[in-house]
Amino acid sequence: MSSPTPSWYHEQHDYSGSSIGFRVRARLHAEQTPFQSIEIYDTTDWGRLMVIDGCMMVTTRDNFLYHEMMSHPALFTHPRAKRVAIIGGGDCGTLREVLKHEEVESVVQVEIDERVTRLAEQYFPELCEANGDPRAQLLFTDGIRWMAECAAESLDVVIVDSTDPIGPAEGLFNEAFYRSCWRALRHGGILVQQSESPLAHLPLLKNIRKAMKAAGFHALRTLTFPQPCYPTGWWSATLARKGADLADFRERGAAAKPFPTRYYNAETHRAALALPEFLREALAD
Amino acid sequence: MSSPTPSWYHEQHDYSGSSIGFRVRARLHAEQTPFQSIEIYDTTDWGRLMVIDGCMMVTTRDNFLYHEMMSHPALFTHPRAKRVAIIGGGDCGTLREVLKHEEVESVVQVEIDERVTRLAEQYFPELCEANGDPRAQLLFTDGIRWMAECAAESLDVVIVDSTDPIGPAEGLFNEAFYRSCWRALRHGGILVQQSESPLAHLPLLKNIRKAMKAAGFHALRTLTFPQPCYPTGWWSATLARKGADLADFRERGAAAKPFPTRYYNAETHRAALALPEFLREALAD
Repeated sequence: MSSPTPSWYHEQHDYSGSSIGFRVRARLHAEQTPFQSIEIYDTTDWGRLMVIDGCMMVTTRDNFLYHEMMSHPALFTHPRAKRVAIIGGGDCGTLREVLKHEEVESVVQVEIDERVTRLAEQYFPELCEANGDPRAQLLFTDGIRWMAECAAESLDVVIVDSTDPIGPAEGLFNEAFYRSCWRALRHGGILVQQSESPLAHLPLLKNIRKAMKAAGFHALRTLTFPQPCYPTGWWSATLARKGADLADFRERGAAAKPFPTRYYNAETHRAALALPEFLREALAD
Repeated sequence: MSSPTPSWYHEQHDYSGSSIGFRVRARLHAEQTPFQSIEIYDTTDWGRLMVIDGCMMVTTRDNFLYHEMMSHPALFTHPRAKRVAIIGGGDCGTLREVLKHEEVESVVQVEIDERVTRLAEQYFPELCEANGDPRAQLLFTDGIRWMAECAAESLDVVIVDSTDPIGPAEGLFNEAFYRSCWRALRHGGILVQQSESPLAHLPLLKNIRKAMKAAGFHALRTLTFPQPCYPTGWWSATLARKGADLADFRERGAAAKPFPTRYYNAETHRAALALPEFLREALAD
């Protein structure tokens, strides 16, 4: 059987004037859901690629970076996170990482677009391998409303694993949403927000932090890590904590973690906390 | 005056099946030197872009990452580096960083292609602002031969700031060249080699380390850092030391550095030393 000649899929990111691309063999799927367009490509070197509204979301080869760094730093900072909520996260990769923690008793994933999860089950089955865990609950509804209606002081960690702040995820990046998160978190609880590229999206990152503070979070830490399929190949997550600081994490726990990871360990956790000079200056406030 | 409509310049990196691109307004210069092709573009968001043999080398906006991480970690590890050689490095950005160190008494930059430096002077003048420093010497000759003929035990730090191991830089990535470096270094001297993407070029990185060991270097450390204009946006430098270990660096000196940087500080130095799980396993030997 002959393969089609490979071509290149480029995401041209207007805001930063930079692009990322992968060599692809074929487009395996394309659909318009009520919320967004979703495409799946077969790449020559990066496994499958999911693209939502023209933005690369996940490749088979590099998603471990993002998913591990969205979950383990918060879970190795909280002393014992029992109840976790993931807002967005429809590819289920963050859910899988969270469920590696034995102390977690329940995780609810609140994804607005069920099609993201159904396509992940089909094209990224390894990300969905923990979906049958009895501690996991998958809801397909509006995360903004769900969080606004969530019982007060009922969660230990909230992970906002969303698309960019345009389209359906726009309402996940503002003070009103962060107030809902603050209300839903217990004392010492941690909010994690993917906070875009430290190099290309600095104004957005500053706005996220400002909105978190306005919502009542006083302790903030922005972590950075590599992520080849996102603009500039360098990404960040911002942690915000209710009623406690973010100075330390459970370094011995991380060093002795009883499950495998590919990027995360105690050293890379500490490394992610290091602020480059320009970022230290930009985020000083 | 009307500007031309912007278009996109993509570097399609065959080896990794991934590409990086920038939005460009115009190609400002193109020439074929005796060694390679060099192009200069004006981008919309990243300043100037230099491309050699189709590979992006430098943009105005992000080169600080690479240049700082190629120089300061070695110079804040060596107790007092007086004599430094840069092999390649024709854009002069590494030279500028090295000269920020007061303890450095002389730096020789050995670039095979004088045109790289002449174009840097024209299109990246900020990288060349230290070229007139009386401690700096710019040679335009073959770095492999220069290193083979270099006086034994005459250097404290050698920085191999080269293009990829194809074309004129091929001979900078093998045991014979590293033996020359070993010979030229004093006891405790440090060799720095740009060692490509930790994610896309792992076999190459392992070969570099193997060749360094075969050449007599027993202490090795591979550092990682973001670099948007290089494939995968994530890059590495490998340090090798003659007759001493690489366990520590002058952390207090780095924390009190008397010159400005944009990425490098004591925290990011330590962060760069953290090995992600997959890399720790791959480099265990």
